[in-house]
This record gives sequence, C-alpha cells and structure tokens, in this order.
Amino acid sequence: MLAVIALGGNAFARESGKVGSPEEQWERVKLAAVDVADMIEEGFDVVVTHGNGPQAGLLAERVSDYLSLDMIDAATEGWMGYLIANALTNEFLRRGIQRSPVIVISRSIVNKNDTAFQNPTKYIGPIYDEETADKLSKERGWVFKWDMRGGFRRVVPSPEPVGTMELDLVRLLLREGYVPIAVGGGGIPIISNGEVRGVDAVIDKDLASQVLANAINADYLLILTDVDYVYINYKKPNQARLTEVTVGELERYYNEGQFPPGSMGPKVLAVIRFIKGGGKAAYIGPLGRARDVIKGLVGTRIVPKKAF
Amino acid sequence: MLAVIALGGNAFARESGKVGSPEEQWERVKLAAVDVADMIEEGFDVVVTHGNGPQAGLLAERVSDYLSLDMIDAATEGWMGYLIANALTNEFLRRGIQRSPVIVISRSIVNKNDTAFQNPTKYIGPIYDEETADKLSKERGWVFKWDMRGGFRRVVPSPEPVGTMELDLVRLLLREGYVPIAVGGGGIPIISNGEVRGVDAVIDKDLASQVLANAINADYLLILTDVDYVYINYKKPNQARLTEVTVGELERYYNEGQFPPGSMGPKVLAVIRFIKGGGKAAYIGPLGRARDVIKGLVGTRIVPKKAF
Repeated sequence: MLAVIALGGNAFARESGKVGSPEEQWERVKLAAVDVADMIEEGFDVVVTHGNGPQAGLLAERVSDYLSLDMIDAATEGWMGYLIANALTNEFLRRGIQRSPVIVISRSIVNKNDTAFQNPTKYIGPIYDEETADKLSKERGWVFKWDMRGGFRRVVPSPEPVGTMELDLVRLLLREGYVPIAVGGGGIPIISNGEVRGVDAVIDKDLASQVLANAINADYLLILTDVDYVYINYKKPNQARLTEVTVGELERYYNEGQFPPGSMGPKVLAVIRFIKGGGKAAYIGPLGRARDVIKGLVGTRIVPKKAF
Repeated sequence: MLAVIALGGNAFARESGKVGSPEEQWERVKLAAVDVADMIEEGFDVVVTHGNGPQAGLLAERVSDYLSLDMIDAATEGWMGYLIANALTNEFLRRGIQRSPVIVISRSIVNKNDTAFQNPTKYIGPIYDEETADKLSKERGWVFKWDMRGGFRRVVPSPEPVGTMELDLVRLLLREGYVPIAVGGGGIPIISNGEVRGVDAVIDKDLASQVLANAINADYLLILTDVDYVYINYKKPNQARLTEVTVGELERYYNEGQFPPGSMGPKVLAVIRFIKGGGKAAYIGPLGRARDVIKGLVGTRIVPKKAF
C-alpha cells in the first residue's frame, strides 16, 4: 500500500504564516515526522511532499535580486527537505524503523502554453509603494497588482504541473525501501522544449502531489494541514463538515464554488483528480493526526463511490 | 572507472567572488556541465561535488535570522544542485548521453569533539560594527573576530567531515547509471549521537569530496577551480608549477607550509588523503578543461609513486 502525504507549508511556520526561528522550525516539523512514522507502522510505503509558501515568500523578499523563483523553489526543497529528513531519521531511530529518507529535488514540467503565463495571479513577496513597483517592473519585468493591504505586490504565474522529471528516481527509491521527500513547494517549474529551462513561476503543491501520486500509482493521498475537516457552506449558518464524500459529490460542491481558490480549492481539486486518476481514497485532515485520519476519527475521506 | 569532480563555488559566481544574476549563474555553470559530459564521453562514471562559499555567504548575510548554517548549506545544495542538474540535462541532451543527474542533499557527519568547535576560524557573512557584533553575540551566541577590512565578522567552526549519511544512496545511484551531485558545500554538518542534529558550522568541500571519493572507491579525484596548476614558492622569484608530483613530494611541500590555509591548502590536503586512501590519481586544474586535465595538457597530477 502506497500513500503520498502532502504537508502544508504552514506546518513549518508560525501560526501567523511567517517562518519561525530555527528552533521553532525543528519543533514544528516533528509533527510531520510522527505522521510519516505512524503511516509506516500502519504498513504503508510513503512519499512525503510539502508546501513552501512562507519559506519561498521569505527568500523572494530577501534574495530575489540573485535567485529567480525556480532557484528559490530549489533552495526551499533543500532547506525544508533537510528539516523533514532529519526529523524522520530521528523518529525512525526512536521507533526502530529501518528506513532512510531521501530528499528528491524535483523539477516539475509545466506547459509553455499554460494560460497561467498570460495571467499571473499568485501573490509573492513584500508589498511595495508604486514608485518601487514601477522600478522593479522595468528592471526585472515583474508584474504587480494592487494588494488590499495598501500597496503593490508582485504576482506570478501558477501553471499546472504535468509531470516530474524525477519520476523514475522516485520509483527506484520506493523499490529500494527509501522514503522519498519529493515535489517540495510543487517542484521547480520547468519548460521542456528541446532543452529544459526553469521559469519564474510557482506550482501548487497539492496539484503537484496529485500528479506524482497518480504517476506512481499511489493507493492513497493524504493532504495534512491546519484544518480538521473540509466544510461546505463554510462560516454560514448551514455550515456542515464532510466526513466521507464521494468524488462525484465533492466535484459538485467544487463546481458550486464552495471552496476558495487560495486555500481549500486546490486541495479539493487535487483529491478529485487523484480519485478520478485511479486512487483508492484521499484524505484531507489535520497535521499530526495521520493515523486518526486514515481510521476515520477526524478529517474528510474522499472515495470513488459509496461503500454500501 | 569512477571519478569525483569537485567544482569550486566560484565556478558559479562572478570573478569578484560575489553571486551573479540568475542569467550569469546559468552562463557560468555551463562550463561545469561541459567538464562532466567530457568525462562521461571519456568513459568515466562521475560524481559531481561543489563548493558554496559565495552562495552561503549571501544567505548568511540576508536570512540568518531564520536559517542556521546547516539549513543554509541545505538551501545551497538545492539551489546550486539545480543549476548543475539543469545544465547537465541540457548538455546530455545535446550530446545524446543517456544519463540523468540526481541532486543528493547530503548530510556530512562531523565529530562532536572536533577541536574546530572550540576554535572557530572560518569567516562568514558581512562585516559589522562593534555594537552590532556585541548584540548578535548576545542574542545568537555568535563568535566574532576582527576583520582586516575594518570591523567585526562572524567566525564559525569548520570541523572535519568523517562521512556522509547518504553514502548508500550515492552507491545505489551509481549502480543505476545516474550522475549524483553530492556533498554540496561540503554537506550539511551533522553530529550523530543517538540522534542526528545539525550544527552551526561549515565543512570544507574539498575534504568532504575526498571522504566521499574514498568511501565509494573512486579511481580519480579532480578538483577544478580557477587555477591552471599548483605552484610551489608561489609569487616568489623561484615559483615553479607542479605538473606531476608524487603524494610523498606533495606532502613534503604541504608540511613546509607552501599552500595557504584558506585556498590551496585544503585542496592539497584533500588530494594527499585521497591518494593515501587508495586513489589512483588526483588532479587540480582549471574548470572547463577537465578533458585536458586528465590528458596532462594542463593542471597538476598527483600520483602514488613515480611511474618509471
């Protein structure tokens, strides 16, 4: 049984969405290690993926004169992959699990004709005044949009991942009993067109996790984040939690616009695609409780059809 | 035949030792890709290693409130590994070489009793005035020393690498025909003591490359950087280039203090240890000319004993 576990980037950051001190980062990643070790003890082979929103934001703010967004993703894959790898090594040592984590710096293929390149929508980095935004726009070709908080913020394309260049490697590592940590932050966005070329864009980590999960024929996809359940009519009087839902029902809710684009939307889209692509079940639930999630004690379970 | 090729961190930076723009980084890494592809065409299996001085320095200057030095190494392994991997993928595509690069984010084991921890010597990051240095010293426990350029600069320990946690992985990748990119920046410094823990230190990339090269029984170690030869009596009237030298002779020069600690010293020490550890030959020569270096057209060749 093969499970892909997708960890929210917030799992490594403070509740404010900001990156914490090194000590705080080590503390937070322990939860993720418990989840992965629990799943292995339950008999699963596991591939770990993770987001990088706060971390890529920090680097975009501080070093984007030297690192383009593809390089920033690569840097966060190393940095956060290391946090996860050390936490896993220690959790495995404690439990006597004979496995080793491997950080797979992943290059995600995107389509050069993806409409996202004509319509950048993903905010990244700090808020600038108009003059600075104009200057950066001229110097670096960045696109800016008005941010509600008062100022201009860079927007970048978020194209769809269509595959990862490191797919055979992930398969090899699984055959050999390793625990791959892959497509961090969605992976480095790459256009392949006779040669490979990184692009200044970001990829949604849930969609990249789904594409990888289907490509390796994973049985299960777990998206672990800071929610207990998926809700419909969220924050309305008729709000309702979803405990088990078929992919058909969930798709209907998705098409009704139940899930906001920036947060739950991509997660729901990822699990819909995963099940339609052959996955046995998907879960969206709270980080640190993977074992409870697969046992149905918390979280939303998405299945191909009703089991009755 | 197995060769480890160690690339200087300056290979990716401007001549000033500063990190260049993204475009400049892509331009510079092409030389390294030519070297690796040439070696593969000459019939070698290759492991690539690289330095990260300018890149780690940049991150230490900009983000060390969030990333400790072990995290910074991990980030540069991702970032620079990606540069090398894309350049290799493209060079292999152009030449029809059926190989794939794999970035191995490497954790290098160091000894917790290494005397380097009591005597930090390696300068890193920016120069501070006394007040700021005092503040950072109190807040973060950093150690500062006077820098000749006028001000205080952080010094960090540079312990000796004794092995890499990713050794079995590198061996697996070589068996499977991959081109591993490993121990970038010397690898992430790790103390293993019941559990693994990263430390705020940096590891010399040439020594880490040598330890890896001997561990995988590499036949050859090539250190490619911005020199044409190793010299004795450097910049003196009796300066002489070394073309071929036995490990015994080179060790005598090393013990005479012919090679400065910060630059050629660790490279010479690395090749001495490599040959004494069973290597067939080592080379120190210019980046971009690996093929000429192994053919004896440029660079210094270090051998176990005279071949006559």
